Amino acid sequence: MKKVGYLGPEATFTHIAVESVFKQITSHPYRTIPSCIDGVTDREVDYAVVPLENALEGSVNLTLDYLIHEKRLPIVGEIVLPIRQHFMVHPKYIEEWQNVEGVYSHPHAIAQCHKFLHDTFRNTPLHEVTSTAYAAQHVYEKEDEKIGAIANEFAAKKYGLQIVKKDVHDYDHNTTRFLILNQENAPLEQTLLEHNGYKTTLMITLSENPAGALHRVLSAFSWRNLNLSKIESRPMKTGLGNYFFIIDIEQKLDDVLIPGAIAEIEALGCNVTLLGSYPYYIIK
Amino acid sequence: MKKVGYLGPEATFTHIAVESVFKQITSHPYRTIPSCIDGVTDREVDYAVVPLENALEGSVNLTLDYLIHEKRLPIVGEIVLPIRQHFMVHPKYIEEWQNVEGVYSHPHAIAQCHKFLHDTFRNTPLHEVTSTAYAAQHVYEKEDEKIGAIANEFAAKKYGLQIVKKDVHDYDHNTTRFLILNQENAPLEQTLLEHNGYKTTLMITLSENPAGALHRVLSAFSWRNLNLSKIESRPMKTGLGNYFFIIDIEQKLDDVLIPGAIAEIEALGCNVTLLGSYPYYIIK
Repeated sequence: MKKVGYLGPEATFTHIAVESVFKQITSHPYRTIPSCIDGVTDREVDYAVVPLENALEGSVNLTLDYLIHEKRLPIVGEIVLPIRQHFMVHPKYIEEWQNVEGVYSHPHAIAQCHKFLHDTFRNTPLHEVTSTAYAAQHVYEKEDEKIGAIANEFAAKKYGLQIVKKDVHDYDHNTTRFLILNQENAPLEQTLLEHNGYKTTLMITLSENPAGALHRVLSAFSWRNLNLSKIESRPMKTGLGNYFFIIDIEQKLDDVLIPGAIAEIEALGCNVTLLGSYPYYIIK
Repeated sequence: MKKVGYLGPEATFTHIAVESVFKQITSHPYRTIPSCIDGVTDREVDYAVVPLENALEGSVNLTLDYLIHEKRLPIVGEIVLPIRQHFMVHPKYIEEWQNVEGVYSHPHAIAQCHKFLHDTFRNTPLHEVTSTAYAAQHVYEKEDEKIGAIANEFAAKKYGLQIVKKDVHDYDHNTTRFLILNQENAPLEQTLLEHNGYKTTLMITLSENPAGALHRVLSAFSWRNLNLSKIESRPMKTGLGNYFFIIDIEQKLDDVLIPGAIAEIEALGCNVTLLGSYPYYIIK
């Protein structure tokens, strides 16, 4: 049975992502993104699942930074998960949930549910804890206190809490992305979901000023009709150059078009690194 | 005296950013990014300072999302601050700091100091708390416990802790950026530092598929020799389109070049919004 490491603790959104996609695996929570990625290189687990953006858990930049500067593991898959936050209480307080005397959650979740909290709990103390899962655990353990938590469905289930108000986050279209990493670039096997398409991710280091160079780099994709679903400039950590770019192309690595674009970009004096060509899974 | 709101609590990096740039102000911590921005629109404060990227405090995407979708305040300045993390203990444990029985910090700071913790405190329990400032406060309050915190210099000073190992973060060139927002787009007055240059930030919504359109959009900057210091695609929250782009141009809004580029991009069928044209301050 394959082992999948993820950024824990249990009942985080990363955990939901793992449970939604993988079939017949054992999963292991890690405390930090670097230790989770190290778990793959140290052969403790076969795959690592770590947040890439918009994360409630883990620093957003850390995944790419660690991947690029420390452990160059290939990306073998991506999971897109809707961020759904719910307000939950201990079952004994279902009737009087609007009168709770404290709301617990992760600071980012509190921020994501600004409107709900402002409208419903304007004068209720908000307590920040290190994860939404921990908030749910706290509400479960302190059943004598009339308190509530903002957390995900998984956490409500795990701690036997009752969701009294669903979808209390401000934006309905909030999703977060997770990368699946593997040492051998082995294709994913035994997934619960059909993939929704393929992506190819490149890291491009520009040799000159970004304005003109980036424009020429994009020409190489544009005239080949290669669609880019993401482009992001990121500062170099070396203090030498200024920026590099991460580009997602909306298709699988082929034999002609993407290699042709890469060769052309390299001929411009840029450095191109393939970070992965992989299926993505959109969870409803 | 002007009032500046910032993402708190006290002694966060956002607080350092405020204290490094503003002169003769009173500052007020806010608990969340939205409430800090609301502080300006509600006239509680004159300026809001909120993290934009790489943040230990506050969700990275939240600032731009709130700014774009909720309260459209002009950006009137940017602060670039190096992220420096230090290991600190209560003064009575200076001699035996390597034998502490617990390390407290924010989960992202713990992740940023992965190598140091791995080398020096491999078997020491790590305790995650909601901010590095809170970690320092905890070490100060529990002076009978032989524990340490990873936090910034400001927190060490505030809580009388002794920094026993400086710069324990993994990457030396880690910086984080903060936006200064103001209701009236009033220029900053009375700053401690000279600014290091100007930036103009545009939000561009593409009317068609990103590959070709983005390439054409960049042409408008490229042939005018307008340097872009950042480009980032971000998903729309409306579920209608797919992406928009945030572009930083490395100069002040002028009468000819940038308006010309904007007109040209609008003629391509894109929507362009000026988010601000402002000085930036690099803190050493």
